Amino acid sequence: MSLSPSVRKGPLQDLVVVDLTRYLAGPYCSLLLADLGARVIKIETPQRGDDSRHVPPLQGGQSTYFMSINRGKESLALNLKDEPDRELLHKLLSEADILVENFRPGVMDKLGLTEEHIRSTYPELIYASISGFGQTGPWRDLPAYDLVVQALSGMMSINGQADGPPTRVGTSIGDLGAGLYAALAIVSAVHERARTGEGSRVDISMLDCQVALLESHYMRYSVTGEIPDRVGSRHPLITPFDTFEAADGHFVICTVGDAMFQQLMRAIEREDLLQDPRFQSPQLRLQHEPELKSELEKQFRGRARAHWLELIGEAGIPCSPINTVADMIDNPQLEQRNIFVDLSSGAEVEYKAVRTPFAAMGYGSGSPQDWAPMLDEHGPKIRSEFE
Amino acid sequence: MSLSPSVRKGPLQDLVVVDLTRYLAGPYCSLLLADLGARVIKIETPQRGDDSRHVPPLQGGQSTYFMSINRGKESLALNLKDEPDRELLHKLLSEADILVENFRPGVMDKLGLTEEHIRSTYPELIYASISGFGQTGPWRDLPAYDLVVQALSGMMSINGQADGPPTRVGTSIGDLGAGLYAALAIVSAVHERARTGEGSRVDISMLDCQVALLESHYMRYSVTGEIPDRVGSRHPLITPFDTFEAADGHFVICTVGDAMFQQLMRAIEREDLLQDPRFQSPQLRLQHEPELKSELEKQFRGRARAHWLELIGEAGIPCSPINTVADMIDNPQLEQRNIFVDLSSGAEVEYKAVRTPFAAMGYGSGSPQDWAPMLDEHGPKIRSEFE
Repeated sequence: MSLSPSVRKGPLQDLVVVDLTRYLAGPYCSLLLADLGARVIKIETPQRGDDSRHVPPLQGGQSTYFMSINRGKESLALNLKDEPDRELLHKLLSEADILVENFRPGVMDKLGLTEEHIRSTYPELIYASISGFGQTGPWRDLPAYDLVVQALSGMMSINGQADGPPTRVGTSIGDLGAGLYAALAIVSAVHERARTGEGSRVDISMLDCQVALLESHYMRYSVTGEIPDRVGSRHPLITPFDTFEAADGHFVICTVGDAMFQQLMRAIEREDLLQDPRFQSPQLRLQHEPELKSELEKQFRGRARAHWLELIGEAGIPCSPINTVADMIDNPQLEQRNIFVDLSSGAEVEYKAVRTPFAAMGYGSGSPQDWAPMLDEHGPKIRSEFE
Repeated sequence: MSLSPSVRKGPLQDLVVVDLTRYLAGPYCSLLLADLGARVIKIETPQRGDDSRHVPPLQGGQSTYFMSINRGKESLALNLKDEPDRELLHKLLSEADILVENFRPGVMDKLGLTEEHIRSTYPELIYASISGFGQTGPWRDLPAYDLVVQALSGMMSINGQADGPPTRVGTSIGDLGAGLYAALAIVSAVHERARTGEGSRVDISMLDCQVALLESHYMRYSVTGEIPDRVGSRHPLITPFDTFEAADGHFVICTVGDAMFQQLMRAIEREDLLQDPRFQSPQLRLQHEPELKSELEKQFRGRARAHWLELIGEAGIPCSPINTVADMIDNPQLEQRNIFVDLSSGAEVEYKAVRTPFAAMGYGSGSPQDWAPMLDEHGPKIRSEFE
């Protein structure tokens, strides 16, 4: 499976990443760097490799979870307790621009890779760590997974139905968020190095990242003293901006301001509600949100959602069905944006992986291949290159 | 309110951003750049300014929502239909490194700022756009808000309780995700420019970003044909890894693998379950997940969550309470990581804003001030500097 001819190498094509990451937060960070063109050399333990290689479901002996986040990387198996392999790691580090790891704080020290040693031996290297709570502070040594930082940060407390329990966000935003902030900090540090000639230390905490993603909720609490709570799918401050039930399922409508509300009422032939004193202003509509929703759903339940989406969409009001993952996999917009990559060449099963959103800009990965590597697949090549 | 003495200017301190963004996705992108040290000049319409200045709750006439995402920027009011103001914009662009906007596709053209014109006049500029569906494809002209891309992408379909409806993620991940990917693409393009001497076009679609955040869900569906669904807070593949109910509320536990499961059973004095044939392996525990949860909660409901968190935490197993936003605002770890910034100097109310996670690395913003600007606050200064 080769990249399409219009692909150009990404903007980070001159960078080499030594990647000691496992599971999700770290590998997602290095996936972003790979999709932006960097050469990512993933170091794995011999025999077992990255633990996420064993997360089900497996297909042809390969974990789909592992495959989806390790595309476009090269794999090198190294036993870091073994002297010749450690020497090879140091040769790689002397050529690399970036080192990224997501062990618990302290593990790098045990591997003989103290921060002091790395920074003094490779003064131009960007040394990035992602951990549950960061490299500093009273909690630095505590263990954390995605669910823990979602729970601690307040993220779960505001996610879910108003009458339901706090709920984990359905994608691993604790890990993916940290990977995104880390990649941004890393590329920024590379930019700084071009000016100063010096590498730097990137220290990303998964908990900090979750709290950062809740920014306005914290600000609102600090000013009003009202603790943000779950409100289901509706906008806490604007209405109608929510999910609604039609005869055959749910859909969403987003209206902002009086003009759009009037357009919506005309589109669905409920101009009578424009005269209703309860719905005369944004503030009044918010105050009477349950009654307005009930009036609208009385109307919507009479016809299928396709009917309503057509009418409301034609009126220029943002609206959409609530899709499953299956609904979008052959979508023409995503097709044209190049968001899916078909890795099934020669395989019996279809493998459609999701690219990072940079694919729409025509960037190809920094790797010779799109798919995820087998354990130590690039070992011989890398050893002959660096030894 | 000055920055603490240990603050150093961030890695992007040599970059100037002309910021035409409004609402959330674009302003979050430029907030990230500002917190990394860039000088961000926010262009707003005279009188009204960024629409998000009017999102309640207001405090001292300022929107907390606006303030939380526009910290550390400079505000300049320009009427882009007015010739002298357009000239000033072009003077700014000729000095700037980055232009970022998040209008609907087509609006920049109407302002006389076509892509061709910008790219030919300012060949070294990074020109970044964030929109609902991107600058290409059949859906490019459709309107979208956060709720629409969460609904379309499948994000809502996997977020929520197993017996509940699809649910919007409680933070605006449709906007914030796009802002993060955009900032990363922008800084990568700046890096490329140092090598090639050329600017480039950054085109970020909010929908692409949501689909990207669901990566392994799409991969899993494409391989197994099983449509991913909502599973509440539990891990779909590993158990016990979920929320549990104690006498006084819920908490979370994450166990991975047999050794950790055995430690957990010993910590909570349920060694008897280690002999239970239903719970002998990770696969069996997953298969009997409801029974295992029920056995554990029988135990947990007898005591307060503080009791269980102490026992389980001491055993080295990741676990935590489920906090509200209020629970974390004075947390010692976040305090040491410098994640909150107190903007209340001289004000009657406490304003605690959340910094981006780069604050823990000691980076200060590129701005002379931490707080968000009043409309046109920096207009006189910028006009005298550039006119």
